Amino acid sequence: MKGLPDLVCVPAEPFSPEAAEAVYRAIRERRDMRHFAGGTVAPEVLKRLLEAAHHAPSVGFMQPWRFIRMGDTALRQRLHEVVEQERVQTARALGQREEEFMRLKVQGLLDAAEVLAVVLADGRERHVFGRRTMPYMDLASAACAIENLWLAARAEGLGMGWVSLFEPAALAALLDLPPGAEPIALLCLGPVREFYAEPMLQQQRWAQRAPLHSLVFDDHWGQASALFAGESMPTEAGRGDDVSTPCVEAVTVRAQPRFRP
Amino acid sequence: MKGLPDLVCVPAEPFSPEAAEAVYRAIRERRDMRHFAGGTVAPEVLKRLLEAAHHAPSVGFMQPWRFIRMGDTALRQRLHEVVEQERVQTARALGQREEEFMRLKVQGLLDAAEVLAVVLADGRERHVFGRRTMPYMDLASAACAIENLWLAARAEGLGMGWVSLFEPAALAALLDLPPGAEPIALLCLGPVREFYAEPMLQQQRWAQRAPLHSLVFDDHWGQASALFAGESMPTEAGRGDDVSTPCVEAVTVRAQPRFRP
Repeated sequence: MKGLPDLVCVPAEPFSPEAAEAVYRAIRERRDMRHFAGGTVAPEVLKRLLEAAHHAPSVGFMQPWRFIRMGDTALRQRLHEVVEQERVQTARALGQREEEFMRLKVQGLLDAAEVLAVVLADGRERHVFGRRTMPYMDLASAACAIENLWLAARAEGLGMGWVSLFEPAALAALLDLPPGAEPIALLCLGPVREFYAEPMLQQQRWAQRAPLHSLVFDDHWGQASALFAGESMPTEAGRGDDVSTPCVEAVTVRAQPRFRP
Repeated sequence: MKGLPDLVCVPAEPFSPEAAEAVYRAIRERRDMRHFAGGTVAPEVLKRLLEAAHHAPSVGFMQPWRFIRMGDTALRQRLHEVVEQERVQTARALGQREEEFMRLKVQGLLDAAEVLAVVLADGRERHVFGRRTMPYMDLASAACAIENLWLAARAEGLGMGWVSLFEPAALAALLDLPPGAEPIALLCLGPVREFYAEPMLQQQRWAQRAPLHSLVFDDHWGQASALFAGESMPTEAGRGDDVSTPCVEAVTVRAQPRFRP
């Protein structure tokens, strides 16, 4: 209990090299999958994955995440339609990359063993801790839960994809969400034939992974980090448009986050 | 290559039971630490952790995350002051839980071996893929990067805490952020004497972990999931205010996310 009065603690020891490597491997080999092989996920495996999600950090321990498991086939078909509508809208907004984008199908909603909608709960305005100035921190917490689920799924040999191509108000209506609850993800989850060796969007030349040193600064924005001394630096370090390659002219991203559909 | 033309793939095999358990252990034993033991993080370890973060999923592979490593002592002191100011503001907003909240110190910014500011890059409005209707999906991506870093740190035996008690505009000014870039986290990272055996906020009775079955529905909001048949159900399943226990009357969370400081 040395140093931490009133708190029950456990020793601060690193994992064994093999166990640490397993954690890094899950992180390295996790993929946003769009190709699924049907099948099923055993209930005890799904519960383990949901427990992993539920062990995510959350701002003020508010645990904002809720999961809706989509078993009904007709409902899944309607979800797929909601996503297809937004896919067409996004393609139009992309302008010159429209065709390229439309070739990237979203079949997971029909093919994956499981589809989970992740929703931010209603009643979140009562939670002030750590989000008075940044109320969107509850979204950050729920994203951590999704990442936990994703890494655990990879360890179980299951693929997962996060679909965010939807109009939140349309999805909220379909799922009977109460006022204040907000959908943030449709997760396709289940057996896959194979995992992509590298991110699909990189293989399909949508974008490339940025060199790490271009993303890290010392003390102030733009000041190259001494951590990477000797590694080549980009001329305009850190600028968003250096990193990936979307040559987008017609941009129609909504200017403001819109958490109240 | 069966089934996935044009994509280089690797076999979809689960991890060994030991390796899968290591992933679950990192998820289970990760803690939001507020007590640090000074010391240092070796540069090669810090690079591994940042690589782990950089392997997070991102919407349209946009990689919105940037990291600013705070080495300057005077700068750290000023960061601490920015956080202290917001801590007092949050305490006031909490009303009847003000005193309880003020007992939870934020010393990590001064004591931790490393402090990393995590910032959403400028130029993000050009990335439409997967965020036309939900532009805040880039925050979700960056949160996944932070969770990766956190899990990897736990495997390395290092503690981490995510501080979101700050006024983003004040932090943006301190870090010389360009227009459009937004700070979302101050990460305290480094050696700790011990890890909390369970979340500090639970040990200090700020909130309790919710039973998983209260967070999972089938097909529609509010419909108890058959996954947990036989486990006791709460009367008002899934409502945000059932989960944790903040009895907050005076609420001053900003009504709308504010991504442009």
